[in-house]
Amino acid sequence: MSGSSGSRPMHWARWGDPRLAAPLTPAARGLVQQALGLPETDTREIPLADVRLPPVRLDGTMIARLGDVVGHDHVRTDDESRVRHTRGRSTTDLIRLRAGDAGDAPDAVVRPGSDDEVLALLSLCSNESVAVVPFGGGTSVVGGLTAEVGGHAGVVALDLARMDRLVRLDETSQTATLQAGVTGPRAEELLQRNGFTLGHFPQSFEYATIGGFAATRSSGQSSSGYGRFDDMVVGLTLVTPVGALRLGHAPASAAGPDLRQLTLGSEGAFGVITEVTLQVRPVPAQKRYEAWRLGSFTEGLDAVRALVQHGVAPTVLRLSDEAETAVGLSQPDTVGEIVGSGCQVVTGYEGSAEEVARSREATSQLLTRLGATPLGEAQGEAWAAHRFAGPYLRDSLLDAGALVETLETATYWSRLPEVYDAVRSSLVASLGQAIVLCHVSHVYATGASLYFTVATRQTDDPVGQWAEAKAAASGAVVRCGATITHHHGVGRDHRPYLAAEIGDLGVQLLRAVKERLDPAGVMNPGVLIP
Amino acid sequence: MSGSSGSRPMHWARWGDPRLAAPLTPAARGLVQQALGLPETDTREIPLADVRLPPVRLDGTMIARLGDVVGHDHVRTDDESRVRHTRGRSTTDLIRLRAGDAGDAPDAVVRPGSDDEVLALLSLCSNESVAVVPFGGGTSVVGGLTAEVGGHAGVVALDLARMDRLVRLDETSQTATLQAGVTGPRAEELLQRNGFTLGHFPQSFEYATIGGFAATRSSGQSSSGYGRFDDMVVGLTLVTPVGALRLGHAPASAAGPDLRQLTLGSEGAFGVITEVTLQVRPVPAQKRYEAWRLGSFTEGLDAVRALVQHGVAPTVLRLSDEAETAVGLSQPDTVGEIVGSGCQVVTGYEGSAEEVARSREATSQLLTRLGATPLGEAQGEAWAAHRFAGPYLRDSLLDAGALVETLETATYWSRLPEVYDAVRSSLVASLGQAIVLCHVSHVYATGASLYFTVATRQTDDPVGQWAEAKAAASGAVVRCGATITHHHGVGRDHRPYLAAEIGDLGVQLLRAVKERLDPAGVMNPGVLIP
Repeated sequence: MSGSSGSRPMHWARWGDPRLAAPLTPAARGLVQQALGLPETDTREIPLADVRLPPVRLDGTMIARLGDVVGHDHVRTDDESRVRHTRGRSTTDLIRLRAGDAGDAPDAVVRPGSDDEVLALLSLCSNESVAVVPFGGGTSVVGGLTAEVGGHAGVVALDLARMDRLVRLDETSQTATLQAGVTGPRAEELLQRNGFTLGHFPQSFEYATIGGFAATRSSGQSSSGYGRFDDMVVGLTLVTPVGALRLGHAPASAAGPDLRQLTLGSEGAFGVITEVTLQVRPVPAQKRYEAWRLGSFTEGLDAVRALVQHGVAPTVLRLSDEAETAVGLSQPDTVGEIVGSGCQVVTGYEGSAEEVARSREATSQLLTRLGATPLGEAQGEAWAAHRFAGPYLRDSLLDAGALVETLETATYWSRLPEVYDAVRSSLVASLGQAIVLCHVSHVYATGASLYFTVATRQTDDPVGQWAEAKAAASGAVVRCGATITHHHGVGRDHRPYLAAEIGDLGVQLLRAVKERLDPAGVMNPGVLIP
Repeated sequence: MSGSSGSRPMHWARWGDPRLAAPLTPAARGLVQQALGLPETDTREIPLADVRLPPVRLDGTMIARLGDVVGHDHVRTDDESRVRHTRGRSTTDLIRLRAGDAGDAPDAVVRPGSDDEVLALLSLCSNESVAVVPFGGGTSVVGGLTAEVGGHAGVVALDLARMDRLVRLDETSQTATLQAGVTGPRAEELLQRNGFTLGHFPQSFEYATIGGFAATRSSGQSSSGYGRFDDMVVGLTLVTPVGALRLGHAPASAAGPDLRQLTLGSEGAFGVITEVTLQVRPVPAQKRYEAWRLGSFTEGLDAVRALVQHGVAPTVLRLSDEAETAVGLSQPDTVGEIVGSGCQVVTGYEGSAEEVARSREATSQLLTRLGATPLGEAQGEAWAAHRFAGPYLRDSLLDAGALVETLETATYWSRLPEVYDAVRSSLVASLGQAIVLCHVSHVYATGASLYFTVATRQTDDPVGQWAEAKAAASGAVVRCGATITHHHGVGRDHRPYLAAEIGDLGVQLLRAVKERLDPAGVMNPGVLIP
């Protein structure tokens, strides 16, 4: 894959680089078989050649016109290209693909090389009533990439892989302008050779792109130190069917509503984000990760809250609940000094030696005062070494017959315990025998995220099984007044709940904006806007 | 004035509490007379009784219907009420009022007491084609409060003074929900009795309101530590003619575009912000202010940039250019240890003793390494003691025949020197003999604000004189690609330049939003949207 700096193309029906597959260890297999009662034998995906696709709906004339815009080499209608752009990487996306269902593959994959080509493409598709799904790393876990035709003549996936350049680096202002198709590793490569880092490391890092991070309001594992992706954005270009919007003249402004914030999170429904200008930072001279233990999740919540409210939050700050801490024990790589119950906190410090020392000292003092026990660096480094491993493990668990998925929310500190209980209860009530793990990985002065990992045994209808569980959990989130998504985005999966979050009037506003920018309604039909 | 905690009502034609007037000292008068060649005798405002107002355009029936909504005591059409709601507090606003021109006074002043009353008022005014100007502290300096009838039957000022309550304080989450009419001092009073502070101290602090801060994206003098006002907002209610928008379910979210950021900076053009939920912080146990000297503005810019890019920025961080530093010398209160040329930096530290010590040590180390000379606490405390004095001094200078006004912008660090030179040159070219002072008072990792204070001798047409200078400065800002306003807002004065900042498509988006929320176009006609 162009620009992904060593990463191989994503497996067509599994997460990531096939070389990095993570088969279950006997210990892990034993644990899940015991807990969930899984079948004896694995079931993998069917062969790629057996995947079922609908016929291409666009005729030769239209394909040729797309090629006239981007170059004929950059329009693909072959089966493999279409399968590789079918949906994203949610568990149900994978379950459907593994079973050979590419029923909503795009008709064609188009790869523009410039803003002008994107504008010409969107104008053509708008005039000819062809739907457009902007496609970066293909890592959506909320149904943000399903190629829905939406009443149009067909649908193309607009793949940004060719737009993978560092456009500008302003070392004085510490900003970098990156094209939307730059992947996480490629961004770090382009920046680090100049002494800078973005510091954005979500679990999708290896494949996800700058444009995708912006379009979905991504948040990385080092968000306490580097901020959410939307916090890093100082400017961006959104190309729509009716023209380009170029925003961001200063780090902050009082020139009316902040239209950057209307574009961030727009998920392709208004246009294509083609370029983003971001705050960057010097490559940290030091990185240290450590682990701590606190007696309970309640104590842990108080501790991470105290850190952030005292302004001493380290670069990485993660708190696992009792269940997630206990499961961590079963992984050979992370067996450490933990004995008995409790909750693990990972703290990470990145910066100059002086900054690391200052932050580590302030954090350690406060954690110690709050009753935390240090578990040392090995435990912290083990987390850092495996920070992108989760999705690989999911494939092995799917092979083994488990249903594994994640969901996330955020709320204010005073409501966190209630939201935690309500979501857990709803999942257990819906799924019956299930493992439900949770961690806090993004902390703010006023609240935090909750990230749940769920594992159960697949029924005969795993897609329906998860739909029911997800509806139960989302209902609990909405009833508690928390946000329906902290960093995964809305896509299709959260769309039914958006009105509960922003009100009917908020939904009408989004529609008004979409009508102005995308009058033909070709941009990513079916996502975001109810 | 209800809710302004000890502040008296604003003088009708001057800034602030008449008890706090700041007559020119002989030294200051000598300086400006020498520099600008002012007349020998002062000219003050004409008597209030002589101010000229247009007749009230709304008939008795409409006035009665407004009274049915808010209570008849809360609808005022007397001359003094109308004069007190005529325009804001820009220099040209004051010059017109001083000369007795209240030509664009509102027809009536209406004071709702609740969200429901605001909604009923906006619905009534929308149906009856009466324009509405939301009015908080009346401190706009960009023409945001001019009662423009905009083709409607009349115009009412919707004064939020009665909505001055603390609605909720969540001590765990450190958030407070305040009604829009709460003034700066009242907010601090309500919060500090519970042990919290907002930390928002713009120069308009004594009169400006929570709703106004939100509607204009205000930024305070302690923004390095507490953030801009828009950074503090976690939730808000915007009541529009078609219903209420209630936003903010979490400290951060990926649930699509952030509609809070479409509401912040909306300046009354979409509706009335009635309630804001804000991050608050514990009242700092310590506050320390100090001053430093650096050799030149260039060295000063490098120093404040280094502080913020190293993450050690103190709560207050201000850098005056050579001219502003020199003028500071002539004020008896701030005469200090400075000898010769150079630029003054003020650093302020607020927090627990530990936080203050940590921040002060890191800041002092870095400033010393960068060649700064400490000037001690007296110099810093003198700044803090006079932090709200500027607008009072302006009135005395207007009396003396000077034209004094401020303007501000922000840009990325690499462009700051160019913007600084261009704006200064444009002002001097337009005004001829003029004093132009500048400081940096809001710093970000990627850039900073520039705040200019300009003084010259009034011509026979000071309004036209300033319009020309402002146009020259705004042209320079736009040509350099900086933002047209960092924290004053758009109002009428910056409206001609908004399209240069957000593009024609951006303007169309704002219009689309306004059409959806305010279909009759009654909300604050003439502000914000070109």
